[in-house]
Amino acid sequence: MPAPMSSVIGIGMDSSVVPLRHGGLFLVQTTDFFYPLVEDPYMMGRITCANVLSDMYAMGVTECDNMLMLLGVSQKMSEKERDIIIPLIIRGFKDCAEENGSRVTGGQTVVNPWLTIGGVATSVCQQYEMIMPDNAVVGDVLVLTKPLGTQVAVNAHHWLEQPERWNRIKLVVSEDDVNKAYHRAMDSMARSNRNSARLMHKYNAHGSTDITGFGILGHAKNLARHQKNEISFVIHNLPCIAKMSAVAKACGNLFGLLQGISAETSGGLLIALPREQAAAYCKEIEKLEGRQAWIIGIVEKGSRTARIIDKPRIIEVPAKDKEGELW
Amino acid sequence: MPAPMSSVIGIGMDSSVVPLRHGGLFLVQTTDFFYPLVEDPYMMGRITCANVLSDMYAMGVTECDNMLMLLGVSQKMSEKERDIIIPLIIRGFKDCAEENGSRVTGGQTVVNPWLTIGGVATSVCQQYEMIMPDNAVVGDVLVLTKPLGTQVAVNAHHWLEQPERWNRIKLVVSEDDVNKAYHRAMDSMARSNRNSARLMHKYNAHGSTDITGFGILGHAKNLARHQKNEISFVIHNLPCIAKMSAVAKACGNLFGLLQGISAETSGGLLIALPREQAAAYCKEIEKLEGRQAWIIGIVEKGSRTARIIDKPRIIEVPAKDKEGELW
Repeated sequence: MPAPMSSVIGIGMDSSVVPLRHGGLFLVQTTDFFYPLVEDPYMMGRITCANVLSDMYAMGVTECDNMLMLLGVSQKMSEKERDIIIPLIIRGFKDCAEENGSRVTGGQTVVNPWLTIGGVATSVCQQYEMIMPDNAVVGDVLVLTKPLGTQVAVNAHHWLEQPERWNRIKLVVSEDDVNKAYHRAMDSMARSNRNSARLMHKYNAHGSTDITGFGILGHAKNLARHQKNEISFVIHNLPCIAKMSAVAKACGNLFGLLQGISAETSGGLLIALPREQAAAYCKEIEKLEGRQAWIIGIVEKGSRTARIIDKPRIIEVPAKDKEGELW
Repeated sequence: MPAPMSSVIGIGMDSSVVPLRHGGLFLVQTTDFFYPLVEDPYMMGRITCANVLSDMYAMGVTECDNMLMLLGVSQKMSEKERDIIIPLIIRGFKDCAEENGSRVTGGQTVVNPWLTIGGVATSVCQQYEMIMPDNAVVGDVLVLTKPLGTQVAVNAHHWLEQPERWNRIKLVVSEDDVNKAYHRAMDSMARSNRNSARLMHKYNAHGSTDITGFGILGHAKNLARHQKNEISFVIHNLPCIAKMSAVAKACGNLFGLLQGISAETSGGLLIALPREQAAAYCKEIEKLEGRQAWIIGIVEKGSRTARIIDKPRIIEVPAKDKEGELW
């Protein structure tokens, strides 16, 4: 949810929704651009695309009719670097778009000091395709569809090559732990929330947002603020990529992972679901995706705020699945 | 027309056009982002918006249903600079969007070394609202709706404060000339091509493109390349903001203005019109807009290329209108 602009222009949803001139249709749009955070350009393209789509999926809209890609090519890249890296980023973005039933038909490329990547996702849909994010009721539970800690994992991985930083965390994690966490984070960021969005319809979700730059608590607060009912969100569990809570602790309060304010990229959906449906929702996610979703909190009466309880349970999300394979 | 991306993804139009799932509708979209080139933040916002809309207007589509804004706030700006400049840019962008019958409902803001501005324009329209840009026929004439030389004017204005550069051109222009040209360029860039697009329908245009980064010849070549018929474009006249051809000559081949390759920002539409309609088109533009459009060339039999004749006529477009008022 791109808050600086949203706050200027005044929207409370993850996507912009505009009624159209034609037959009761709505235009649902979102845009995002940022800077690379993993080393693999192809994966970075996929992550960017999944991240752009995520705001639309948070609205329950699963059919993205078109994508545009935004690229700023760093002026510091050599021609050779450019010729190898940029096509890989574009391919990753396009592959992800196509796997999500969409396509990339245009965009813009500029030269910039920093390598910049982003995109635009657009859907033209009917009202029933959207899930307005403001219908949480007392008694709902909160579900999260991806683990937290992507930023911590990406940074820890980066620190493997920075002895001064590495020394701060090497007592709590091994190099192998960090490599696994980094790959788990990449997998998580590159995975789209489309199935999570589809199942929101099946299980009657009352509202959702996706977790990105403001961390789980920031986005939970924003979602709570826009509810029709006088409710509050209380978060009891924090599913984190394995060992990342230890890394975060070892870094003092650098990330704020356990405070719920660590930024995520292409994070999961945070969904308010009827209590009796939530377990089935999580079970079906796991069946479809081979990855867990978690019930992490409850909706109680309150003044449209969100908080994490005093000592939340940290769920260590392993880098390997039960079969011992990487996802 | 953002060529680097277009060439990767493979489109020959100024906007991406996607058939939708619903009732014969089409999604027409375009995006653009770049860097500030005038000193007035409000005008820069307007110019950015007009420039983004221009690709859509080149397709004949006059109803923009939604706009998103893209902003990269320079990390080198002080907090005070940011607090003054950014809201002005946003206001200019929004005002322009609203005057064009659209609205801004979202966007994204990041921090970047360079100040970056851009946007996304989207229309959901019926087929008859679009003018496919590939129907030029032998005997058509080419019309241009804005003068060339915006980049030259912006640079010359910048050089007023760079003695070394200014010395190269001060024999051919006065400071007053340059200030007038700069304001004429700002007016031109901030003015939208919406009326030009509307009148394309009335006067049965056979295709159009907007003039931006590749200069008039670059965009003419691109338009010619995508024609259904075996035609070529020949350009006889180059309408240029007053004195800018002299500046361009004094700078050697720095801009390529007279070669048709000087970049423009938010330039005019280049339109292939039936010969018998072109004069009326230009006359109505002048009546509606208080600014001239020009017949600048012809469509002849050929192999889908474009050229400027050996000694094109330079039309000096004054900074003041007949009444002596600045536009």
